[in-house]
Amino acid sequence: MSEPFDAVDVIVTKRDGGRLSEAQIDWVLDAYTRGVVADEQMSALAMAILLNGMDRAEIARWTAAMIASGERMDFSGLSRPTADKHSTGGVGDKITLPLAPLVAVFGVAVPQLSGRGLGHTGGTLDKLESVPGWRAALSNDEMMRQLEDVGAVICAAGSGLAPADRKLYALRDVTGTVEAIPLIASSIMSKKIAEGTGSLVLDVKVGSGAFMKDAERAGELARTMVELGTDAGVRTVALLTDMSTPLGLTAGNALEVRESVEVLAGGGPADVVELTVALAREMLDAAGRPDADPAAALADGRAMDVWRRMIAAQGGDPDAPLPVARETEQVVAEADGVLTTLDAYAVGVAAWRLGAGRARKEDPVQAGAGVELHARPGDRVRAGQPLLTLHTDTPERFARAREALAGGVVVAPEAPAAAPRPLVLDRVAAG
Amino acid sequence: MSEPFDAVDVIVTKRDGGRLSEAQIDWVLDAYTRGVVADEQMSALAMAILLNGMDRAEIARWTAAMIASGERMDFSGLSRPTADKHSTGGVGDKITLPLAPLVAVFGVAVPQLSGRGLGHTGGTLDKLESVPGWRAALSNDEMMRQLEDVGAVICAAGSGLAPADRKLYALRDVTGTVEAIPLIASSIMSKKIAEGTGSLVLDVKVGSGAFMKDAERAGELARTMVELGTDAGVRTVALLTDMSTPLGLTAGNALEVRESVEVLAGGGPADVVELTVALAREMLDAAGRPDADPAAALADGRAMDVWRRMIAAQGGDPDAPLPVARETEQVVAEADGVLTTLDAYAVGVAAWRLGAGRARKEDPVQAGAGVELHARPGDRVRAGQPLLTLHTDTPERFARAREALAGGVVVAPEAPAAAPRPLVLDRVAAG
Repeated sequence: MSEPFDAVDVIVTKRDGGRLSEAQIDWVLDAYTRGVVADEQMSALAMAILLNGMDRAEIARWTAAMIASGERMDFSGLSRPTADKHSTGGVGDKITLPLAPLVAVFGVAVPQLSGRGLGHTGGTLDKLESVPGWRAALSNDEMMRQLEDVGAVICAAGSGLAPADRKLYALRDVTGTVEAIPLIASSIMSKKIAEGTGSLVLDVKVGSGAFMKDAERAGELARTMVELGTDAGVRTVALLTDMSTPLGLTAGNALEVRESVEVLAGGGPADVVELTVALAREMLDAAGRPDADPAAALADGRAMDVWRRMIAAQGGDPDAPLPVARETEQVVAEADGVLTTLDAYAVGVAAWRLGAGRARKEDPVQAGAGVELHARPGDRVRAGQPLLTLHTDTPERFARAREALAGGVVVAPEAPAAAPRPLVLDRVAAG
Repeated sequence: MSEPFDAVDVIVTKRDGGRLSEAQIDWVLDAYTRGVVADEQMSALAMAILLNGMDRAEIARWTAAMIASGERMDFSGLSRPTADKHSTGGVGDKITLPLAPLVAVFGVAVPQLSGRGLGHTGGTLDKLESVPGWRAALSNDEMMRQLEDVGAVICAAGSGLAPADRKLYALRDVTGTVEAIPLIASSIMSKKIAEGTGSLVLDVKVGSGAFMKDAERAGELARTMVELGTDAGVRTVALLTDMSTPLGLTAGNALEVRESVEVLAGGGPADVVELTVALAREMLDAAGRPDADPAAALADGRAMDVWRRMIAAQGGDPDAPLPVARETEQVVAEADGVLTTLDAYAVGVAAWRLGAGRARKEDPVQAGAGVELHARPGDRVRAGQPLLTLHTDTPERFARAREALAGGVVVAPEAPAAAPRPLVLDRVAAG
């Protein structure tokens, strides 16, 4: 046998609480990519990692080994600095859409390699695909040219970056091992580091609609990722942001594009604007543009100009009407009072069931489906007043969407005593 | 989807330290047998069970579900009570060979479904297959007839008992999840309960040559198995016995048969006789024969008579000469002193490398290969005196067998201060 390690020995090391050596980590990920380490062995190892953890050096090596499984991109030939952003995913999180063109206004290249939605959170590519003509797949050359000419690109991540991560993620998804912080952090960061960005801002969501429900674990994930980026030479900062209620007033593909365009036109919901500007400032700071004024670039139309050029460069028509769902239904307040809860997870599942999301990678999505919000937590409402509009092409879906909302939309006679949660909860930078 | 559970939910329940419900356990083992739960999902669950444990009720249900995956045998038609014995495996452990006929002398039926060796411990079937003509495979009818006529049968377990266990064991073997006590206990007990024995005596080995190296874990395994048997209506007792040095003076297939015949002839090494009689007393007690005198039945030839009939009933010739290895080499004492260590694991690996054992299920074994011991720990020895004889058909194996013995055979100038360990360390019965 020419393999330097035995998979069982590697598994047993972690199972018994030991440290994996650099050579063990390099081998196990390479051998897994080659099919020498079997899926059932990797899933046992993933469970042992989830329950027994990895230290900072182990996680860094694990990430490096995933990067080494594929190709690396190189933006050093661009005339501009690069900055990228990653969100851990939430309900109504359309921030990438206004953010990428906004940062590009200031001469920073934003190479935003994005994914599709799965489950109750939407995907950036699904949203943009509701723009008539727009295409997600670009060659490396097309991407480089667009970064140089327009400054911003949002496109599908190629299959060449960290292929070990793609294989491992699919395995974790079916084996109850998604929730391991070392594996989440290395999965995200391997792709971002392989992509070759100079700086990176992470938006780590906390709350019912987020992958991380509590701030402690979200903070641990943020610190782990900032360490990994920093150790790999990428200027990395993370914001912890609230995801207990949806971002903005829409969840759904075309609905969110419409709201993003409102923000780019200088309007839009306050929370979407606040987070877009906060993340833009971090990206601009990290990319060496501390004096840039992103709020001004939203107000005066410069961000909208880049948006239109970005959409057009990928075949999209920024002036074409967006798709609209065939059917709508309203959810109304049953009594007078205050909207105390508008739960992000409930809204996310409702939008998914209406057709905006998918349960399996290969499922299609409806461009027009989703949920539109007419009130925010803390708002006074009257009996009969519309709280939400549900959108779908397939009205048999309304009933299950309403089931998802049960308990997630609460109108109480009195306002809650607690102050509303701030949107940006914390900031994590290299220590 | 018509499945009542999702595999990921079951995994996550155990991963997060929860109890699996009876319905979850029934489903996951049935679905695994059907191939609906994939290997990579079951291995993640096995790792979560190993690290987070199962309680008594969970283990009992897990065992019941494994039994339900296959057929059950029924000995209630026999005119005699049944008693069975299981050993967790050790080096030189040939006890089943004299024990089964010895217990049958007293009108108790002994249906001994056995396995083959893997790694450094031998298998009962491999040993008996060194008897010319003997065959391990019997139909259920043949087995029942032999139990009624002879009283003892040692044969291969059919593939119909607990098929879920066979599939799960093969998976655990390659995923570092063999060492989970709930899974070890349910694996052993599912087959013994499905087999339908009325009483069961467990020989749980402790020490370097055993699967369990320390007495605490061996005790936990013994208690778990006694609870499982008792809860299933099988009178179950366990002895914890020493496996720091080999049992008897031989390790290897034909070598161990020869030693077993010596015991049946009223002779043989004292430790083999002691353990054979101790286990026979437990089996006879449990089967309602408390006044039987097994030592007398060894001395007066009654056990030998049953042995000869048992071998002949399965096609074997009890008078045929046993196979002998083509080549032998001796390991001699390098100095005068006391043999302080004769390590069971070292001897087991040496016998395996000489050809007595196998690394993979499908490998053949050599009938004559193995290790013969000429001294026991505590014996005074002189420089140049033979301590071991190595037997093999393939002399190129001697060098690697000697490597296995390095450090495992120690002659020291003075005797150790500690008293020798007793052979039977503890007894565990239903509380």
